[in-house]
Amino acid sequence: MKKYVYMFPEGNGSMRELLGGKGANLAEMTVLGMPVPQGFTITTEACTRYYEDGKTIHPEIQEQILEYLDKLQQVTGKTLGDPNKPLLVSVRSGARASMPGMMDTILNLGMNDTICDAVAKLTDNPRFARDSYRRFIQMFSDVVMELPKSTFEVFIDQVKEKKGVKMDNELDAEDMSELIELFKAHYQKSLGEEFPQDPKKQLMEAVRAVFRSWDNPRANTYRRMNDIPHSWGTAVNVQSMVFGNMGDTSGTGVAFTRDPATGEKKLYGEFLMNAQGEDVVAGIRTPQPISALADTMPEVYQQFVDISSRLEQHYGDMQDMEFTIENAKLYMLQTRNGKRTAQAAIKVAVDLVDEGVCTKEQAIMKVEPKQLDSLLHPTFVPAALKAATPIATGLPASPGAACGAVYFTAEDAAAAHKNGQKVVLVRQETSPEDIDGMAVAEGVMTARGGMTSHAAVVARGMGTCCVAGASGVKVSEEDKTLTFADGTVVKEGEAISLDGSTGNIYLGEIATQDAELTGDFGRFMGWADEIRTLKVRTNGDTPRDAVQARKFGAEGIGLCRTEHMFFETERIKAVREMIVSDTVEQRRAALAKILPMQRGDFEGIYRAMGGLPVTIRLLDPPLHEFLPQEDDDIKELADEMGITFDKLKSKVDDLHEFNPMLGTRGCRLDVLYPEIAEMQTEAIISAAINVWKQDGIEITPEIMVPLVSEINELRFVKQVIKAKADALIEASGLPMQYLVGTMIETPRAAVTADMIAEEAEFFSFGTNDLTQMTYGFSRDDVGRILETYFDKKILESDPFARLDQQGVGKLVRSAAEAGRSTRPNIKLGICGEHGGDPSSVEFCHAVGLNYVSCSPFRVPIARLAAAQARVKELGKA
Amino acid sequence: MKKYVYMFPEGNGSMRELLGGKGANLAEMTVLGMPVPQGFTITTEACTRYYEDGKTIHPEIQEQILEYLDKLQQVTGKTLGDPNKPLLVSVRSGARASMPGMMDTILNLGMNDTICDAVAKLTDNPRFARDSYRRFIQMFSDVVMELPKSTFEVFIDQVKEKKGVKMDNELDAEDMSELIELFKAHYQKSLGEEFPQDPKKQLMEAVRAVFRSWDNPRANTYRRMNDIPHSWGTAVNVQSMVFGNMGDTSGTGVAFTRDPATGEKKLYGEFLMNAQGEDVVAGIRTPQPISALADTMPEVYQQFVDISSRLEQHYGDMQDMEFTIENAKLYMLQTRNGKRTAQAAIKVAVDLVDEGVCTKEQAIMKVEPKQLDSLLHPTFVPAALKAATPIATGLPASPGAACGAVYFTAEDAAAAHKNGQKVVLVRQETSPEDIDGMAVAEGVMTARGGMTSHAAVVARGMGTCCVAGASGVKVSEEDKTLTFADGTVVKEGEAISLDGSTGNIYLGEIATQDAELTGDFGRFMGWADEIRTLKVRTNGDTPRDAVQARKFGAEGIGLCRTEHMFFETERIKAVREMIVSDTVEQRRAALAKILPMQRGDFEGIYRAMGGLPVTIRLLDPPLHEFLPQEDDDIKELADEMGITFDKLKSKVDDLHEFNPMLGTRGCRLDVLYPEIAEMQTEAIISAAINVWKQDGIEITPEIMVPLVSEINELRFVKQVIKAKADALIEASGLPMQYLVGTMIETPRAAVTADMIAEEAEFFSFGTNDLTQMTYGFSRDDVGRILETYFDKKILESDPFARLDQQGVGKLVRSAAEAGRSTRPNIKLGICGEHGGDPSSVEFCHAVGLNYVSCSPFRVPIARLAAAQARVKELGKA
Repeated sequence: MKKYVYMFPEGNGSMRELLGGKGANLAEMTVLGMPVPQGFTITTEACTRYYEDGKTIHPEIQEQILEYLDKLQQVTGKTLGDPNKPLLVSVRSGARASMPGMMDTILNLGMNDTICDAVAKLTDNPRFARDSYRRFIQMFSDVVMELPKSTFEVFIDQVKEKKGVKMDNELDAEDMSELIELFKAHYQKSLGEEFPQDPKKQLMEAVRAVFRSWDNPRANTYRRMNDIPHSWGTAVNVQSMVFGNMGDTSGTGVAFTRDPATGEKKLYGEFLMNAQGEDVVAGIRTPQPISALADTMPEVYQQFVDISSRLEQHYGDMQDMEFTIENAKLYMLQTRNGKRTAQAAIKVAVDLVDEGVCTKEQAIMKVEPKQLDSLLHPTFVPAALKAATPIATGLPASPGAACGAVYFTAEDAAAAHKNGQKVVLVRQETSPEDIDGMAVAEGVMTARGGMTSHAAVVARGMGTCCVAGASGVKVSEEDKTLTFADGTVVKEGEAISLDGSTGNIYLGEIATQDAELTGDFGRFMGWADEIRTLKVRTNGDTPRDAVQARKFGAEGIGLCRTEHMFFETERIKAVREMIVSDTVEQRRAALAKILPMQRGDFEGIYRAMGGLPVTIRLLDPPLHEFLPQEDDDIKELADEMGITFDKLKSKVDDLHEFNPMLGTRGCRLDVLYPEIAEMQTEAIISAAINVWKQDGIEITPEIMVPLVSEINELRFVKQVIKAKADALIEASGLPMQYLVGTMIETPRAAVTADMIAEEAEFFSFGTNDLTQMTYGFSRDDVGRILETYFDKKILESDPFARLDQQGVGKLVRSAAEAGRSTRPNIKLGICGEHGGDPSSVEFCHAVGLNYVSCSPFRVPIARLAAAQARVKELGKA
Repeated sequence: MKKYVYMFPEGNGSMRELLGGKGANLAEMTVLGMPVPQGFTITTEACTRYYEDGKTIHPEIQEQILEYLDKLQQVTGKTLGDPNKPLLVSVRSGARASMPGMMDTILNLGMNDTICDAVAKLTDNPRFARDSYRRFIQMFSDVVMELPKSTFEVFIDQVKEKKGVKMDNELDAEDMSELIELFKAHYQKSLGEEFPQDPKKQLMEAVRAVFRSWDNPRANTYRRMNDIPHSWGTAVNVQSMVFGNMGDTSGTGVAFTRDPATGEKKLYGEFLMNAQGEDVVAGIRTPQPISALADTMPEVYQQFVDISSRLEQHYGDMQDMEFTIENAKLYMLQTRNGKRTAQAAIKVAVDLVDEGVCTKEQAIMKVEPKQLDSLLHPTFVPAALKAATPIATGLPASPGAACGAVYFTAEDAAAAHKNGQKVVLVRQETSPEDIDGMAVAEGVMTARGGMTSHAAVVARGMGTCCVAGASGVKVSEEDKTLTFADGTVVKEGEAISLDGSTGNIYLGEIATQDAELTGDFGRFMGWADEIRTLKVRTNGDTPRDAVQARKFGAEGIGLCRTEHMFFETERIKAVREMIVSDTVEQRRAALAKILPMQRGDFEGIYRAMGGLPVTIRLLDPPLHEFLPQEDDDIKELADEMGITFDKLKSKVDDLHEFNPMLGTRGCRLDVLYPEIAEMQTEAIISAAINVWKQDGIEITPEIMVPLVSEINELRFVKQVIKAKADALIEASGLPMQYLVGTMIETPRAAVTADMIAEEAEFFSFGTNDLTQMTYGFSRDDVGRILETYFDKKILESDPFARLDQQGVGKLVRSAAEAGRSTRPNIKLGICGEHGGDPSSVEFCHAVGLNYVSCSPFRVPIARLAAAQARVKELGKA
């Protein structure tokens, strides 16, 4: 029989796949001799087995759990349910990747009426015993029985009101007794059964609940956002309890070895005396800074500082730790690599290299590529900011600047975002249920909670600006209003601005500006560039895009979409004239009007790129996209064009397609109307000639033929291109080279890539269309089913955001191989939106592409992802 | 330097790829010692080289041609352009596959003013010499200079009128002189240059023209219809002329060793005395039957009978021969396996086996699978026919019965066909330009021409009913009328009926009936069934389809489309009710109404198939197909359904898709609405239970899940199916098995077939959709580009008609292998329309599929194609 349970000393830090991050690190700390309460870990394999077995814990696994419980009882000398030596345990989830707050935790398990009395007697602290019991009832009910915690809060409020106090810690032992009775009655009434008194039953139910929580909606959303497969499962850690709520020499806290917002090297954290861990994380009471511990308990503080420092050295990274002090004795409950802002991540990585703690390669691995995003987005324009006076200030929980319309629920925020609004999510405090709203918000503001509150941790992880714990601000989620200390009321839909780096809150919108990309960021990205072998280009259609992308380090343009130029107001007239032409001559005449404009565009782009490669794609969309579809609009345009309604209408009807995605577009247009390819070739080549002659910039244009599915298509269009290009170049007298290549974006192009490479001098994988056709998913229509597919575990991620390596990726891989087999020096790139997705970039590196091309703001992400892929490949992580 | 030219004795019958069919057979006859005029063949490689070199004959090839001309001159003792011993040659095309009338021929080459006089003197036959010269001018002008032959006919008519005669052969030598002058003047005037007098220039131009004719539109159309690749090219045969127009002991003819219409074993053909070959084929003069030659020239006749018999034995197949008699001496100009009607093909094949001339395997190869089609189509209902009196009778040129509206040009016929009309093409006589019109016609009627006229040959090849040479019928292509001897006038669009087996023509439409499938046909198909290993199923949605298909030999149903049942008037109400449902309960209620109807359908199909396998596909099309799209229709339906317009309109809008082909259809519907799969499973399984119990027919239903692109989709739907099916079967007490399989119709399903086979118990390749998605061609939209793609040689055949083996086929092959690697006994089939296309069937056999499934009328075609594939594989052809 497989081993499904490990005592902490049986594991170590390298076993995170099996034991989860928390379990592996508890084992590692135990092995390092640090003060860790004893316990055992139920493996992630037990969790996947639970799902395979139709959501039941196999009897053999149950047996192993009880066997290891026995071992724990022997080691601790305490026994679950034994009033003489009662063992109480925590039951906590712990997946391979950290998913803070996404799954469930139960503390004080083992409590029942008898044990509560026994603990009261043993500790001579009835308030502590009863407080622990009532907490356990609440957590067990919530997590195991799905009877929400909040339904219990009512009773606490009742008791506090009756007593005329405000804080939980003002309640005494008697009050706790009353609460226990009220809680048990509520449990009985709501669930039709007594609160379970058998600790072993409690344990098994709790384990089951943690397994189940792996599949809760917020965990699923989090996983999807963070590319964590459902199949990983979570481990469960059962650990003997230590108590931070035993009195004034007890407490609990969390801390980082460096400031997770700025990266500054100093112990950073918070603690609460006489409290359990949930109180800190939930942000209900406002905790003290960790430095205050030096005054109250200097020895414990020093011990903690030493342990922190050892852990950071040991793991070579900034640590995020949980600890509890029980009667002045320190216990470590968790350590992990700390989540941090992008800014902090960069600073920590650079500092760790400077401190000699890790190599550049290791440093590169410490920053999530996606996080960089937050460094690239606008901050407030200083002048605009100067003019603005904050109306309130909260904690600077996640840096960046944001402005948008306020919404008070995750649903409303998501709905407004869907309607194209920039939104700021405003909440009393966030909870894991708010994750969907946070994901779409420009910024998040909460009235309560500290720097390690849920809102702060999650926003930092997302790279979203967050101001937390804004005191003096009243949030009424019911009335959908935000009331400031001076009486100003902001209603739903009105704008505020947030500065996540200072914590300031402003009324209205404040102008923003781009980020600076120098200093630590520059050094760090320089290392990434040294390490990576995969080039990074950008998708850009205008000189402005080109300038922006070069700032972000783009090494060329991988995709310049010429049709965007066609849509501009002045040009669309000529484009439409071309479309309604009846003869080749008319079409040529209309194209001749477009030519100088398009040539001008290309000149601007070539100049902006200063000789870096530029790949220009020939016209791609179906022609009907340039014409109106409604009769009224057709009439208007017909008048404007001086043709009859009937003529234009019949043209529109002619061009109508049942499935435009699979219709007359891409190179098919050039086969039907070679004069389009001719005109575009002339614009591309003559622009290059002009810039070369005027600015001395040597250019090798790359002309890309889209939507090829058959080598003969490319052969035909290439002949058209060559005839025009060769004539222009010869006439220019310049020694200009140019390349003709193709998109690989139909499955057939991928499958026949060996043949296509006979003509194509480069391939650019158009993974957007390739994904559409390989799945048979229209991107415009897939929204209807995607949510259901996620819910039913049919898909784990959106294949349009993250390259599907099993299907689409297989085609990319084999096409790359086939292309190279025909033309060993063929240039290979990718220009779908996947080019900016880190896991997809890693795949592109592994497949041996020469470059990825992505939108300008994703260029730094791709550079870092490419470096990480290289580090992994070399095994230097 | 490559050898591009072969003297006839250098070749043989096995070299048809290089020398073309005509060249190889001329070589073979030469080797066999038969009387063949000397000559040489310019290879098909020279033709492909011509196209590679931008439509020029490479100087090296020109040199070789002249070198072989020298050899020919040495062998014949005659010289091109030498008035003392003038050599005249024919220049004729000859591709690997026979393409009768599709390319060009030039006779009497070498003629010029001097040679004409010389030949007149040498033969003492000035009329012959001048007739030959004027023919040459006409042909050279037409073929080489593209000055149409018909523009010369005017002058012939003038001269005949002036002289008061009707037939060409009534013109004398003087008249011919006059014609030569008129022709040369017409040439000079039209082309601005003298008619070329240099015979070597004439030769090279003629060769060039034959190469060029390979690419003419009618040849391209013919190739596409007959799956002949453009890359094959044509050979050119240059042969010293013999003359059938030398006087009354000269003549020319064509003959078959058996009757090409019925297959009867008797020499069958026609000849004309004092004529050249073109006169027979063109059907201008009505020729005599071959048997008449026995009376006029018994020795020549006997020699021809002997040669015919030797050739048939030698080639093991019915031969189609051309001969010329020059001054009572027989010359063989061509032999080839004769084109024949399907009926004849079957009879010849069966007889050849019975006569011991060939094996069953060889016999199987002698019938074009596509031809069988004509045997399966209706003949006239005898009673209806009895009541009808023919209004005219022509030659029974291609068997079968046809009725339809008459049209007088190929364009009109094609247009009417496009509008859904059944058409009969009526022409004075057809020419290769009419091929498009013939392809769409139910039947073809011509006023002139014999059994070997263009109309007859081509119609037989197509399996289209044809009545040719209907004497006493006047066809006015100008007035668009058909006037019978009794004065009856049939106008464009009015109906006639044709009996291609008797030659009878009837007014109006006569009822038709299905073909008999016994006798020779039954024996022949029996051999095919013995030989083949690939099973043949049918696509059928109704008991009627099932009965029809079983008659044609279907061994099961490979695709039963359940949505066709949904469209029936009574059912669509319930279907629409289901679609507009807001809740699962409403949807279930609507589905419950559909259930008994669908169960009834399946019972009927199971009974009709009598225990043969039946594969039923779950609902496939997007739901919006069941709702109207126009506001007026929506309003009407809303009233009918008793819901508001707004509600229905908003449902229609909700369901609108940009690319329905890539939208919410197939298994995606079952994931969104599992209750649909539940209902269909219940109908499928409970129908099988009922039929088993009531009729004792043991059934193993095969449930097919469409449009899977991801294994999890199939896994999900399979769970839904199994839950329902297992419960029903358990309750029935029957030992019923069932299979759950999937369509492989998205590229991703093909690429991940190894994974999909973990759940799928069978694969059915849906090559229609797979072709759409692999190419990115919407079948509904591709029409717009297909013609251009053919014209520009980008595609050679329609990938929806003939499986694209390089792209789509590659996916099929690798998916079949991957499926088998996971599940060795997985059942593999194909149910796209390719299942009835012979070349695609051969591919399916090669890939090792278990069965193909096609429409009922294609089942015999598929059976034969499967047998041929097996014969080829075994090398027994």
